[in-house]
Amino acid sequence: MSKIDKVVLAYSGGLDTSVIVRWLQETYDCEVVTFTADIGQGEEVEPARAKAEALGVKEIYIDDLREEYVRDFVFPMFRANTIYEGEYLLGTSIARPLIAKRLIEIANETGADAISHGATGKGNDQVRFELGAYALKPGIQVIAPWREWDLTSREKLMQYCEQHKIPVDFSTGKKKSPYSMDANLLHISYEGGILEDPWAEAEEDMWRWSVSPEAAPDQPTYITLTFENGDPVAIDGERMSPATLLEKLNKLGGANGIGRLDIVENRYVGMKSRGCYETPGGTILLKAHRAIESITLDREVAHMKDELMPRYANLIYNGYWWSPERRMLQAAIDESQQVVNGEVRLKLYKGSVSAVGRRSAESLFDERIATFEEDAGAYDQKDAEGFIKLNALRLRIAAGKGRKLI
Amino acid sequence: MSKIDKVVLAYSGGLDTSVIVRWLQETYDCEVVTFTADIGQGEEVEPARAKAEALGVKEIYIDDLREEYVRDFVFPMFRANTIYEGEYLLGTSIARPLIAKRLIEIANETGADAISHGATGKGNDQVRFELGAYALKPGIQVIAPWREWDLTSREKLMQYCEQHKIPVDFSTGKKKSPYSMDANLLHISYEGGILEDPWAEAEEDMWRWSVSPEAAPDQPTYITLTFENGDPVAIDGERMSPATLLEKLNKLGGANGIGRLDIVENRYVGMKSRGCYETPGGTILLKAHRAIESITLDREVAHMKDELMPRYANLIYNGYWWSPERRMLQAAIDESQQVVNGEVRLKLYKGSVSAVGRRSAESLFDERIATFEEDAGAYDQKDAEGFIKLNALRLRIAAGKGRKLI
Amino acid sequence: MSKIDKVVLAYSGGLDTSVIVRWLQETYDCEVVTFTADIGQGEEVEPARAKAEALGVKEIYIDDLREEYVRDFVFPMFRANTIYEGEYLLGTSIARPLIAKRLIEIANETGADAISHGATGKGNDQVRFELGAYALKPGIQVIAPWREWDLTSREKLMQYCEQHKIPVDFSTGKKKSPYSMDANLLHISYEGGILEDPWAEAEEDMWRWSVSPEAAPDQPTYITLTFENGDPVAIDGERMSPATLLEKLNKLGGANGIGRLDIVENRYVGMKSRGCYETPGGTILLKAHRAIESITLDREVAHMKDELMPRYANLIYNGYWWSPERRMLQAAIDESQQVVNGEVRLKLYKGSVSAVGRRSAESLFDERIATFEEDAGAYDQKDAEGFIKLNALRLRIAAGKGRKLI
Amino acid sequence: MSKIDKVVLAYSGGLDTSVIVRWLQETYDCEVVTFTADIGQGEEVEPARAKAEALGVKEIYIDDLREEYVRDFVFPMFRANTIYEGEYLLGTSIARPLIAKRLIEIANETGADAISHGATGKGNDQVRFELGAYALKPGIQVIAPWREWDLTSREKLMQYCEQHKIPVDFSTGKKKSPYSMDANLLHISYEGGILEDPWAEAEEDMWRWSVSPEAAPDQPTYITLTFENGDPVAIDGERMSPATLLEKLNKLGGANGIGRLDIVENRYVGMKSRGCYETPGGTILLKAHRAIESITLDREVAHMKDELMPRYANLIYNGYWWSPERRMLQAAIDESQQVVNGEVRLKLYKGSVSAVGRRSAESLFDERIATFEEDAGAYDQKDAEGFIKLNALRLRIAAGKGRKLI
Repeated sequence: MSKIDKVVLAYSGGLDTSVIVRWLQETYDCEVVTFTADIGQGEEVEPARAKAEALGVKEIYIDDLREEYVRDFVFPMFRANTIYEGEYLLGTSIARPLIAKRLIEIANETGADAISHGATGKGNDQVRFELGAYALKPGIQVIAPWREWDLTSREKLMQYCEQHKIPVDFSTGKKKSPYSMDANLLHISYEGGILEDPWAEAEEDMWRWSVSPEAAPDQPTYITLTFENGDPVAIDGERMSPATLLEKLNKLGGANGIGRLDIVENRYVGMKSRGCYETPGGTILLKAHRAIESITLDREVAHMKDELMPRYANLIYNGYWWSPERRMLQAAIDESQQVVNGEVRLKLYKGSVSAVGRRSAESLFDERIATFEEDAGAYDQKDAEGFIKLNALRLRIAAGKGRKLI
Repeated sequence: MSKIDKVVLAYSGGLDTSVIVRWLQETYDCEVVTFTADIGQGEEVEPARAKAEALGVKEIYIDDLREEYVRDFVFPMFRANTIYEGEYLLGTSIARPLIAKRLIEIANETGADAISHGATGKGNDQVRFELGAYALKPGIQVIAPWREWDLTSREKLMQYCEQHKIPVDFSTGKKKSPYSMDANLLHISYEGGILEDPWAEAEEDMWRWSVSPEAAPDQPTYITLTFENGDPVAIDGERMSPATLLEKLNKLGGANGIGRLDIVENRYVGMKSRGCYETPGGTILLKAHRAIESITLDREVAHMKDELMPRYANLIYNGYWWSPERRMLQAAIDESQQVVNGEVRLKLYKGSVSAVGRRSAESLFDERIATFEEDAGAYDQKDAEGFIKLNALRLRIAAGKGRKLI
Repeated sequence: MSKIDKVVLAYSGGLDTSVIVRWLQETYDCEVVTFTADIGQGEEVEPARAKAEALGVKEIYIDDLREEYVRDFVFPMFRANTIYEGEYLLGTSIARPLIAKRLIEIANETGADAISHGATGKGNDQVRFELGAYALKPGIQVIAPWREWDLTSREKLMQYCEQHKIPVDFSTGKKKSPYSMDANLLHISYEGGILEDPWAEAEEDMWRWSVSPEAAPDQPTYITLTFENGDPVAIDGERMSPATLLEKLNKLGGANGIGRLDIVENRYVGMKSRGCYETPGGTILLKAHRAIESITLDREVAHMKDELMPRYANLIYNGYWWSPERRMLQAAIDESQQVVNGEVRLKLYKGSVSAVGRRSAESLFDERIATFEEDAGAYDQKDAEGFIKLNALRLRIAAGKGRKLI
Repeated sequence: MSKIDKVVLAYSGGLDTSVIVRWLQETYDCEVVTFTADIGQGEEVEPARAKAEALGVKEIYIDDLREEYVRDFVFPMFRANTIYEGEYLLGTSIARPLIAKRLIEIANETGADAISHGATGKGNDQVRFELGAYALKPGIQVIAPWREWDLTSREKLMQYCEQHKIPVDFSTGKKKSPYSMDANLLHISYEGGILEDPWAEAEEDMWRWSVSPEAAPDQPTYITLTFENGDPVAIDGERMSPATLLEKLNKLGGANGIGRLDIVENRYVGMKSRGCYETPGGTILLKAHRAIESITLDREVAHMKDELMPRYANLIYNGYWWSPERRMLQAAIDESQQVVNGEVRLKLYKGSVSAVGRRSAESLFDERIATFEEDAGAYDQKDAEGFIKLNALRLRIAAGKGRKLI
């Protein structure tokens, strides 16, 4: 075991990370710095201060990172229409590099030689925290208590609390959810419990951010989203900050039953796991972003983005936000977004979001050419013959030489 | 102008292709063979016989290709979770290579030296028909009247009918739709009219296959889809033929308002165009196929499929079904599907389809390992440390040598 | 035929383009502006002035574009280690977008409404010139005489010269090469003649830029190449301009028999064609660039570059230098090159170039870690176990469930 | 430490693996089965029998795997023109999955519960052996002594020999090479020693399989290679078995100084390492395979192969031969090779190999179309205009709407 003097812990204020504070103090005989961030998880972060103090923590960081989170992580990711395995909007993954970055910044400020987190040894989050930390500060040490200790059951944890006089009310008073949940401004996730059987349907009362489509209003809601350089900047003409905008989209989406997802995904550590997600605002945003791109992006640029996207999604899912290859891809993505400006009109209704209109001063949609009516020579249909003939040439030569395709 | 003796025409029995019959006869002084296929467009094909006869056609082909269409084209395409530009399920594109193949088969049977079709010079379909034809019979000649004649307005067409005594009732008696439509078992499409303004919302009464989500039942419909080798074979345990199954899914989807899409897409000939599509069964099938793959496919295979998919979609959209590169990709896709067996339970409701359960005898989901509970040593959490450390090594070396990521 | 007032012609001063001058004047009754560029083809460009004047041309442009060519086209392309179809260094392709750009600039300066060139209708160059021109000035008209006129044999051309009093000595006095050749600072190419039989070996006396390996010196030549941001800036410590440097490398390579290539390639217009190329400096540069990247680039960045390269090569080969998708890829490539600084030592000998040493202040090569000797804990071998175990997990789960790989 | 009863060891007969035999016996108190394979490393394998017997081994496997190696591993890999990081022909990587497979087969035959190997914890080979083993037999245990023991220096190893009476002559009598070497029918590799400084040139006397280009014959050697389904089957018309053919190519290449490579590569475990390789036959084979493909493969198939190749190379380099994703890619590659039949004529000279001729009954090279001479209408040059116009359409629309590319 390494010698550790001071460790910065990603501290939620909940029971588990409170136990970790004490366990770090005892196991490593080191000072613990706590770091609690508001990234839109929907819980007060200020109460974490008193709890940390009660545990003897002297350096306590409580940050509101919501704007930075949406501006520098969520929006850049959406520029690529990023989806993991065809369905998952990466709501957990994209929050991790920000936490990793703050942990390292605080380690630098406080002179800590280690960081710690409450992620388990089976999941993706440990990887995301630690890859980020190592990439930003290669000499940092990492303590992952769940991989080290033997408090492997809730009973043992509670026993530890008792022995170490960690106040019971650190546990949330509310009835414990049967699911393992995680939330930030982009989404809320559910794992575990009944979901460990991939054939079992999630219970209706599991979902927290969205009404069921059945319960959504019987009238559709229409909104208009304005984009600048690929990022949304206004709803119905009203400009707002990134976090405010995403929060508003979450409310709109949630009220209309939008953004629920139930999947089995492949973790980086090698196993499949069932997850349910609510991403109301993100689901709307993805639809809208594709719609504004559909009239402003060149075809080949759009196709190249689609081909690059899966690996960009992998990078984020696997924890490589802070990597040179992500920066390289981001350079290409961002280059493409300078022209992605304009408005998208969306219809939200009972779980669905549709783009029903899109317009832009930079639109490449050319009505003169696209029309079924007379186009006054804007397009010479005879060009198509040569186009087809030469595109067919290699196929004709091959067929002429006896190659069979059937 | 080439010398043509006999031409096989893709003949719908409608006014436009009836005019083409006469125009071919007159312009090329050649015999016309008509070919009318039922690919599930929802209109009788038999009436085309009398019309063709009235136009003096002697060789008339009327084929029911629905099973072949779904089995050999639609299902293979869905094995790849194919989507063009993130949204379009390729309902028009995938029907064209079958038509091209039959045109060539009939040309071979009848000794025709040319084929002809009623697609315009601005669209993708001309490319798909002709690339397919050239690839399968390199010496074939192609006559594309819309690229050649001067009947460029409806008035001129009607005038031509009068002059050439083409019965007026060849025009469909029904009120002419303001949209250009195309349908087959996979979808129905709408273009033109008001849709030429991408900001204008499609009118509700445009949609023909699906009720509006608003009008869909207030109770969800649950179905179970069975897959074998990546293809669906049964609904709720009842085995049915490919075409029957897709038709059933279309009904189920349509009744629940599923599968509407409104997009601006990039045509192969270089312009953007607005299209609206209803793909009820296909939308369900895509969701279900991803769900069954999620528990049966290896992660890296799934990711490779996702990375290859956009270019496979491009191939189909652009008309290269009959090409060696499509066969090469198909070999990889089909290789991956041998294990894609099992059942998916789906919830259909007001425009949305969700996978709520999936199970398979070949599932790779390992509950022992995935569990949040004690796993009795199935997974050693300590392995994660080495995994992360070595994955981080290149990043740490770089950071240690001063490389910056922020 | 369109009405043309003034056309800018890419004019070599040779017989063919001289005929084109006259043919344009006669056929289109328009003014011709000639543009002759020195891009390192190794022939005087100034004589083109008198020839153009003799043909009655009033606006004559003669530019030395060598530095711009190497700096803005050749070097950016080499940053990607670009090779077409595994072997071809794109020496012709990369020169075309520069010509297209200048043609359009001159059209803008002179108020011309058309451009013209001497490329045939079978080749790639017509595509490259015209795509570039259309992309930079969409309303420009293009006249491609070889696709229009009937001077399809040398006899007819000579007859035309006589009839139109084009001085015979416009034809190069030297014995006409049996090959169609093209040269610029990056390479010289040979096509046609005996090469049209892909089984026939090129004659030794065809090659012009390099001695045969057999005739090269018996002693190897060693040089050191310095790179900054991915571009070479000095040879053996002596800084020189881009064009000077490439010219020097050509001499060094040519003297050592380096850079000959004999391939069958696939043209964009659909046919295969045999080409022989000499790219002495480029061959050295590619080897050196890979070598400097090998110690300065992150692994994943290098791999991503390798995966993107073939389509970047396609873009250039097919004439899409002036396209948004090339710019998008270039943004990613250039982002990666900021760290590509250092020196490479190369051995040139009898047709081969080897990298024998590479060093850089930004090297990521870590001798402490890489060593076979004791590394004093720089690398913990035990980490490898966890790394392998988790990378194997998905394979083990699959095998445990009966999946077979053999 | 797990309980092990019997372990199969990849045994070379050399000092290191002999120490491992004893160390396994002592440390795990288990029975050791040795497995020694001839994969063309150029050393007798039979002597390993007596050495193993002397160490008390009762089950001894000595296999000649040369034909299987070339037929089932080397040739399939070359079908993809596989190169890692632009230069490395994967000579070590491709031998490992065969060893892994045999280790598992022998474990199954002998009822062993573990396998063991002599690869270090820093390299790629441990990963390749173990990933293969786990993929083929998920419950197998793996013992990697170099990651476990403390015999981390040569002195300690020798001391262990003495203590455990391992005959000194197990060490090769020859002067120990300063390099760490590995050989099989495809290549010989050198690492360590002076090579750990990437700026230092390899000494001439390091190379063992090839003469220096300087010392190669002054006359070129010409050979003709015949391919069937993408694999070479004959040299100069003489059919031979895979291993015989590769061995012959090695001799031919080595005598002409062909196939030396000096690179810095990126290991899967995260570090850069310097390696020198001699791959005489493989270098010839790659050139020849590309040449035969150049006339028999469709363009788009060839390009798709080029785009997929880097990740196929990664799979092999990283040890994922035995994986479903490699099988998926192989299906695509093999599908493409059915038409790769014909002959390539090659010139070998002083370190270089050139393809100087290629012919095939399945050639797609069409002299009628490719010719610079009159083609009698085989190709209509006017088609090129439409081809270019429509390919330019998206660019023209964009430029017309004010998009800038410069």
